[in-house]
Amino acid sequence: MSASSNKGVVYIGPGAVEVQTIDDPKFDNPAGQKIEHAVILKVLSTNICGSDQHMVRGRTTAPAGLVLGHEITGEVIEKGADVEMLAVGDIVSVPFNVACGRCRCCRAGDTGVCLTVNPARAGGAYGYVDMGGWIGGQARYVMVPYADFNLLRFPDRDQALAKIRDLTMLSDILPTGFHGAVKAGVGVGSVTYVAGAGPVGLAAAASARILGSAVVMIGDFNKERLAHAERAGFTPVDLGRHDRLGEMVAEIVGAPEVDAAIDAVGFEARGHAGGEQPAIVLNQMMEITRAAGQIGIPGLYVTDDPGGVDESARVGSLSLRFGLGWAKAQSFHTGQTPVLRYNRQLMMAILHDRLPIADIVNARVISLEQAPEGYRDFDKGAAVKYVLDPHGEIAKAA
Amino acid sequence: MSASSNKGVVYIGPGAVEVQTIDDPKFDNPAGQKIEHAVILKVLSTNICGSDQHMVRGRTTAPAGLVLGHEITGEVIEKGADVEMLAVGDIVSVPFNVACGRCRCCRAGDTGVCLTVNPARAGGAYGYVDMGGWIGGQARYVMVPYADFNLLRFPDRDQALAKIRDLTMLSDILPTGFHGAVKAGVGVGSVTYVAGAGPVGLAAAASARILGSAVVMIGDFNKERLAHAERAGFTPVDLGRHDRLGEMVAEIVGAPEVDAAIDAVGFEARGHAGGEQPAIVLNQMMEITRAAGQIGIPGLYVTDDPGGVDESARVGSLSLRFGLGWAKAQSFHTGQTPVLRYNRQLMMAILHDRLPIADIVNARVISLEQAPEGYRDFDKGAAVKYVLDPHGEIAKAA
Amino acid sequence: MSASSNKGVVYIGPGAVEVQTIDDPKFDNPAGQKIEHAVILKVLSTNICGSDQHMVRGRTTAPAGLVLGHEITGEVIEKGADVEMLAVGDIVSVPFNVACGRCRCCRAGDTGVCLTVNPARAGGAYGYVDMGGWIGGQARYVMVPYADFNLLRFPDRDQALAKIRDLTMLSDILPTGFHGAVKAGVGVGSVTYVAGAGPVGLAAAASARILGSAVVMIGDFNKERLAHAERAGFTPVDLGRHDRLGEMVAEIVGAPEVDAAIDAVGFEARGHAGGEQPAIVLNQMMEITRAAGQIGIPGLYVTDDPGGVDESARVGSLSLRFGLGWAKAQSFHTGQTPVLRYNRQLMMAILHDRLPIADIVNARVISLEQAPEGYRDFDKGAAVKYVLDPHGEIAKAA
Amino acid sequence: MSASSNKGVVYIGPGAVEVQTIDDPKFDNPAGQKIEHAVILKVLSTNICGSDQHMVRGRTTAPAGLVLGHEITGEVIEKGADVEMLAVGDIVSVPFNVACGRCRCCRAGDTGVCLTVNPARAGGAYGYVDMGGWIGGQARYVMVPYADFNLLRFPDRDQALAKIRDLTMLSDILPTGFHGAVKAGVGVGSVTYVAGAGPVGLAAAASARILGSAVVMIGDFNKERLAHAERAGFTPVDLGRHDRLGEMVAEIVGAPEVDAAIDAVGFEARGHAGGEQPAIVLNQMMEITRAAGQIGIPGLYVTDDPGGVDESARVGSLSLRFGLGWAKAQSFHTGQTPVLRYNRQLMMAILHDRLPIADIVNARVISLEQAPEGYRDFDKGAAVKYVLDPHGEIAKAA
Repeated sequence: MSASSNKGVVYIGPGAVEVQTIDDPKFDNPAGQKIEHAVILKVLSTNICGSDQHMVRGRTTAPAGLVLGHEITGEVIEKGADVEMLAVGDIVSVPFNVACGRCRCCRAGDTGVCLTVNPARAGGAYGYVDMGGWIGGQARYVMVPYADFNLLRFPDRDQALAKIRDLTMLSDILPTGFHGAVKAGVGVGSVTYVAGAGPVGLAAAASARILGSAVVMIGDFNKERLAHAERAGFTPVDLGRHDRLGEMVAEIVGAPEVDAAIDAVGFEARGHAGGEQPAIVLNQMMEITRAAGQIGIPGLYVTDDPGGVDESARVGSLSLRFGLGWAKAQSFHTGQTPVLRYNRQLMMAILHDRLPIADIVNARVISLEQAPEGYRDFDKGAAVKYVLDPHGEIAKAA
Repeated sequence: MSASSNKGVVYIGPGAVEVQTIDDPKFDNPAGQKIEHAVILKVLSTNICGSDQHMVRGRTTAPAGLVLGHEITGEVIEKGADVEMLAVGDIVSVPFNVACGRCRCCRAGDTGVCLTVNPARAGGAYGYVDMGGWIGGQARYVMVPYADFNLLRFPDRDQALAKIRDLTMLSDILPTGFHGAVKAGVGVGSVTYVAGAGPVGLAAAASARILGSAVVMIGDFNKERLAHAERAGFTPVDLGRHDRLGEMVAEIVGAPEVDAAIDAVGFEARGHAGGEQPAIVLNQMMEITRAAGQIGIPGLYVTDDPGGVDESARVGSLSLRFGLGWAKAQSFHTGQTPVLRYNRQLMMAILHDRLPIADIVNARVISLEQAPEGYRDFDKGAAVKYVLDPHGEIAKAA
Repeated sequence: MSASSNKGVVYIGPGAVEVQTIDDPKFDNPAGQKIEHAVILKVLSTNICGSDQHMVRGRTTAPAGLVLGHEITGEVIEKGADVEMLAVGDIVSVPFNVACGRCRCCRAGDTGVCLTVNPARAGGAYGYVDMGGWIGGQARYVMVPYADFNLLRFPDRDQALAKIRDLTMLSDILPTGFHGAVKAGVGVGSVTYVAGAGPVGLAAAASARILGSAVVMIGDFNKERLAHAERAGFTPVDLGRHDRLGEMVAEIVGAPEVDAAIDAVGFEARGHAGGEQPAIVLNQMMEITRAAGQIGIPGLYVTDDPGGVDESARVGSLSLRFGLGWAKAQSFHTGQTPVLRYNRQLMMAILHDRLPIADIVNARVISLEQAPEGYRDFDKGAAVKYVLDPHGEIAKAA
Repeated sequence: MSASSNKGVVYIGPGAVEVQTIDDPKFDNPAGQKIEHAVILKVLSTNICGSDQHMVRGRTTAPAGLVLGHEITGEVIEKGADVEMLAVGDIVSVPFNVACGRCRCCRAGDTGVCLTVNPARAGGAYGYVDMGGWIGGQARYVMVPYADFNLLRFPDRDQALAKIRDLTMLSDILPTGFHGAVKAGVGVGSVTYVAGAGPVGLAAAASARILGSAVVMIGDFNKERLAHAERAGFTPVDLGRHDRLGEMVAEIVGAPEVDAAIDAVGFEARGHAGGEQPAIVLNQMMEITRAAGQIGIPGLYVTDDPGGVDESARVGSLSLRFGLGWAKAQSFHTGQTPVLRYNRQLMMAILHDRLPIADIVNARVISLEQAPEGYRDFDKGAAVKYVLDPHGEIAKAA
């Protein structure tokens, strides 16, 4: 790394990202204070995420110039004075949450809402609007604070490189899908429905399967994504047929009801009639989830949406059939996933060949320079998960 | 009991109840089938509940002629062939939920959504619209099905009669308040906020206290109820002052945030400006509850509300600031309380003088004949919990 | 069924069982009282269990004449007046626990220690010493009390018969292995060790796998059982090599430690040197289980063992390295499995082809008349699970 | 603090401690490496603990020269470069566990078995044999590593000093008693039995009460301690009467059984006949705890006990009636308490006057110089908890 060596994917404005030369990472936090607990990583892989799309579509207040990227896997190349558990050369997974490991929430494992890394609200992330100003990792190099706490070290370098297409999913979407499944109460024998066949939906479905689900249905309008979901072994539900979800569920499992439902869509949900209906997925979940069931909601809902369909949507207000959920004694579980709660165990499942997540989400490796095309195709609904390879290391390892 | 001996509180129409002669209870279920698992109880106490008010105010589709009452304590006077654990003469508490004890939900302890006692939906109750047609117990006699499963026997008759003003709260409001507190995650040291200083709110506050809360705040507009709450040892929050709840919380605990929040109001919520705002309590909860907090919602939300303020309210749809809840990683817990999960332990706390619930909710004993006055005063916001004494046994015991 | 039609497997004395004509089942409990909550089943399958062996080996105080059998699947052919949820013709799985569904323990889901079905102690079972005197089901017909509560109905008769070799494991060993795994804290990514490669050990291993274990090791001295375990996809640990279990674990996973350990052996444990050492498995578990780990103990430990190796063993006292377990902050989970807590979900996994338990435990179907040979071969350590087919229905369905 | 200013309580040999001049604390870990995450505390209070007694009685392999003390409350007077959340002048409680906050166990909240602070085994502590070599805090000054993670800051300095007799119990015995109660499954309405009326037993009893126990019994042989327990509001059980504990329990609650049992005695247990019987408390717990009950074991059991009554005891092996526990489906929960999991919430209960723990344990403040007398009296069974006041600050605040 040298002062001129870094490059990253930068948000330019609605619909536009560019790969630019950016500053090399420093041992400073966003407030400009020197920190001893950080490491600098050479980024080995970094993925494009659906939540990046929210920003790039102009659905947030993200400022131009923001370096994107919160799904990062890398190699430690430099470390601060208070990094004890990591060594230069270690290959590590970076949870997308920036967390201090020292506040009340972090101590309780709620790293998704760390109280100290973001002056504006609970919870921090790399390369994301309103998440504390930590620089993103769709780049060649990135700084990770509180490194001993945040980073998951892979036990073996060669094994890690050999499986990096899978392991790269540990930074966000696999734990996020898993969190949704856990919070929905998925267990052995569950009949599970996942809304959304994008990468997080597929990760939720994969999670439901490894948690023992008897049946995993996955609903979407996108036929290419449904076809991929079916190839991955899940039962597709084509929402384009009609809007009676319970009926479609009943065709599959004999009753219009599931044990567990996971919303992997979030606020940009669309209805059958076309057009955005931000509450439709949640309302459908209440309808099809059994009494006493739980609804896991990893899909993002926001407090401010400049592109919302109406005044309510613009402040994150949804028209929910709460009376129905109440009558069924359901519970609703929201929020950013605390990745650290799950990533070690999911890593073990990957390393022992129990969770072929790269194939399930259809990982496609591209160069850092190809990021703009990746963003564009993903936005069009391509049934792929784009993995950037900033140093060509994945290509080399393959 | 003889063929002409029964009397009960009957719903006549919006605003009107009457004490009428009603049929004696029979060993038949609402479908008219003979059942072996039931007992007939002589009702020793039966309380007027806030959820009865919803019906009496005409806010439900309850038909005229419905015998009211789901908070029942009684003495077994007759039993079916398949009642093994109870004897004639036993004094018992009746959970307001009718539950079979044999379906998937009951086996899992989710007796609030029993799958077999109500053909229309999950969950049954006595004397309540849409809850399966089981005859209410604001009466001299009542039938209780699945008696071995449903009934909680008090260990000692004399002790039970001596404490009946407290024990009568086990049929509904005490477990309901407790469920709210448990689902809100209240524990030792919690800072807790309870919305609503009616009987369920006070029971929730009492529950929060016995669960170890450091601070229990309780908010309402009703000054009489607030004054009573303060006498009971809780910290009153006068919602009539202004609409900035966080500010009032901060005055008490130094920060605009609580660990746990309990909605003991439900869909007939009002805002500071006056007028019904069915979503206001839930939205306030999201605002004041800490990140990663839980919100317990024992307050009733309905699927159909003929008196709703607008079209959405009439179908139980609420405009919720879900984006805010999501940003704070909150969870929301709804539904009828499964009384059996809690009533035995709460009985123990009462019998050992740890939970003076009658005084906390300001129990006032009146005769069955006085029920109409009780309904009227309670509807006006009296800071009391009315307990009907159909046989004068409580008066005698006192 | 007629008065002379029943036959069952009867314990004669140490080492001896016989198939004899036995009384037809009646609607009476062991105290001779008429009961309305029972059904009579035509037994479709009934398995020989390792815990039957304890009796047949003379390691309990079981009296001669006891009709054996607590792993029962059958068809309802007659029902009492208070059986509402089942119909004649239903195919059902019988949990080995007799449970009333009405006591404090059953209401909490602890059906393994029902308080009312056994006057001698908590917990009842069919055909087992000290478990309440309920007649066993290695027979053509059997009575099941509290049928609505206890029985798990299969959704489809044909499907049930087609999968009966798997579904027959729901009555005991599959939930028992699963309970062990759950209580050991097995989850996605766990490194799991199962002590004992008999049917319960294999069921525990299968459970660990469907719960998401990354690695499932299974230890035994019996080479035939180890070979079968390996064929079923588990990692065998040959305890005959030496007595340093941690070393063998380390050879497999790189460290002498597991996340979760399950004792599927119980009190008749043997050491490497030969000879019974009732505490050896538990002591090994403490040694190899990680700090803060849990140890699930489905293997049976008894209060009285006439054949115990010494005075302590004869009263169920074990010399445990408790100081070691304490230093590692481990927890220990014992007791009969509450089958009802798990059997529905495991049924779903079987019906949807996620849990091929018959092959995993190497089910072998024999006739009722062949039961004595089955007992003998199983006692010798055959790597099979014997399923009796009293009416030839399994043979027919195959 | 200056190079010559520190003094501490030093273990000299069996039965002997001395207050000596000791080295000032340094920013070095026991391996001699410079650390950036530590603070130096001026010790405001530090308590003598029953587990110190094990060492001082010669029941461990503690070497002469060891500086004692793991119950510490202090003021931050100096901090390392990577201490971000604390400021000089903060008053803090030190959990007795030394924990890194960065390993797998700490991330999961299992700070009692931190994997990195002790090369010999999981778990570290200050001033304790085999716990990593961290210097004890019965001293004027002490170093605390990983300070941001480990320390609990009191919100207000004056309030903290005013309540320091209570708050000083947060470093160990209050969370330890609470952990025992939680792990025993104590909840609202529980009938609870605590073995041992020393400070940890009293803290467990206080914890059981604030958790909502209906009845809290506490058993001991020491009449002075029993009398104090009764004054504190618990029900004393005089073990000196006879050895039939169930009978004494039945006299109090009507049945020989409790819901929850807590062992606050540990391996130096004595029997009614006199003489040490290390397994007697655990065996009694199994006897009196209900089926499906849990047994919380905060009392210390060790792997090596040079003073053990026999060969088994010397290696931490106990003769347990495990068959009895198994028949009752009990679970057993051991280990050092992870203080951080509980101390914040217990602090809140203290600050809001819900938990008068100083009076419950009979705190007595003495000077650092009086420590040897404190040790001696406590060893004789004085019904007090000694709090050392190294700088006279408590005396000043009182």
